[in-house]
Amino acid sequence: MKVIVDLCIIPIGVGVSLSPYIAACEKILSEAQLKTQLHANGTNIEGEWEEVFAAIKRCHEVIHEMGAPRITTIVRCGTRVDRDQSLEDKIRSVQARLTKE
Amino acid sequence: MKVIVDLCIIPIGVGVSLSPYIAACEKILSEAQLKTQLHANGTNIEGEWEEVFAAIKRCHEVIHEMGAPRITTIVRCGTRVDRDQSLEDKIRSVQARLTKE
Amino acid sequence: MKVIVDLCIIPIGVGVSLSPYIAACEKILSEAQLKTQLHANGTNIEGEWEEVFAAIKRCHEVIHEMGAPRITTIVRCGTRVDRDQSLEDKIRSVQARLTKE
Amino acid sequence: MKVIVDLCIIPIGVGVSLSPYIAACEKILSEAQLKTQLHANGTNIEGEWEEVFAAIKRCHEVIHEMGAPRITTIVRCGTRVDRDQSLEDKIRSVQARLTKE
Repeated sequence: MKVIVDLCIIPIGVGVSLSPYIAACEKILSEAQLKTQLHANGTNIEGEWEEVFAAIKRCHEVIHEMGAPRITTIVRCGTRVDRDQSLEDKIRSVQARLTKE
Repeated sequence: MKVIVDLCIIPIGVGVSLSPYIAACEKILSEAQLKTQLHANGTNIEGEWEEVFAAIKRCHEVIHEMGAPRITTIVRCGTRVDRDQSLEDKIRSVQARLTKE
Repeated sequence: MKVIVDLCIIPIGVGVSLSPYIAACEKILSEAQLKTQLHANGTNIEGEWEEVFAAIKRCHEVIHEMGAPRITTIVRCGTRVDRDQSLEDKIRSVQARLTKE
Repeated sequence: MKVIVDLCIIPIGVGVSLSPYIAACEKILSEAQLKTQLHANGTNIEGEWEEVFAAIKRCHEVIHEMGAPRITTIVRCGTRVDRDQSLEDKIRSVQARLTKE
């Protein structure tokens, strides 16, 4: 089952600078050969359910190893069986509407 | 790795009455022998990472089988390595603060 | 416009013990005379849009005053125009399904 | 108080094609002269708290007027008092870490 995910990981108890932890996650997602798009508030991911959630678990493990005692993660995940849709398709379908008007 | 999750599943394309789908998920979580607490906007879950996310995947599969072409799910998940914490602990720690004052 | 909200506030840069901040928010919501239900991963709120979001803004202000340099908040909010629905109605509609089967 | 928001609006009860509703929200945010960045799973917004949440309320009103009986919206919002940070800063801080390694 293919899934499209928006991932936002918040390490807690390591101060206010979270970019080292987010960068570590980007590397994990990249090594897992998942399609990703970093944005200002998270990372969009496209892949198979098992692989995506295995990578998210790995992110938690690595961030704990980096010293974060606590992590809260927000995952918004979408599946659909009516048709195949990519990260690019999702943006294009909105932009097409905006252009038409 | 133990995880505490807030799960909110939104079937899309099946009208406005979502309770049959939420009830089906409650049964899946219960059959998976996970500790759960239903609340007005979702379900809190406590369990091992693998088991919790296998159950969430099963929820997606079953809701699609029930006829929903599309699903968006919001998972907030927390892990911590500094101490063990249950669903009840989380509520108690806030209530203890409120009582003290 | 009435809104039902699930509020999860995460102060960042103040260590791992977040309950003093959550308790402060509970007091703000209570003083705003909003209907609330604390649960393990957040607080459910029922009220008028303007009042609910004014209270959430006040939570951010107070948590910053308490010393948190950074806050991330997750708000899931629902509105509907087909019928009136309370926090209790939402739980009851799922529980009714579970009992019926 | 400045806020950075990730907005994900899910109209319920209008079928599976949600892009007309998302496009309508993009127009509302643009007319409100907020800085926005559309991504595959939502829209990032940067602005003053009052203006951002007034625009989000307007999105709910317009989507209901367009015929959606029910809406669930997920807002992740961040404020910080330690320093000013833009949408671009947030991406750059992660990318700088990735390049350095």
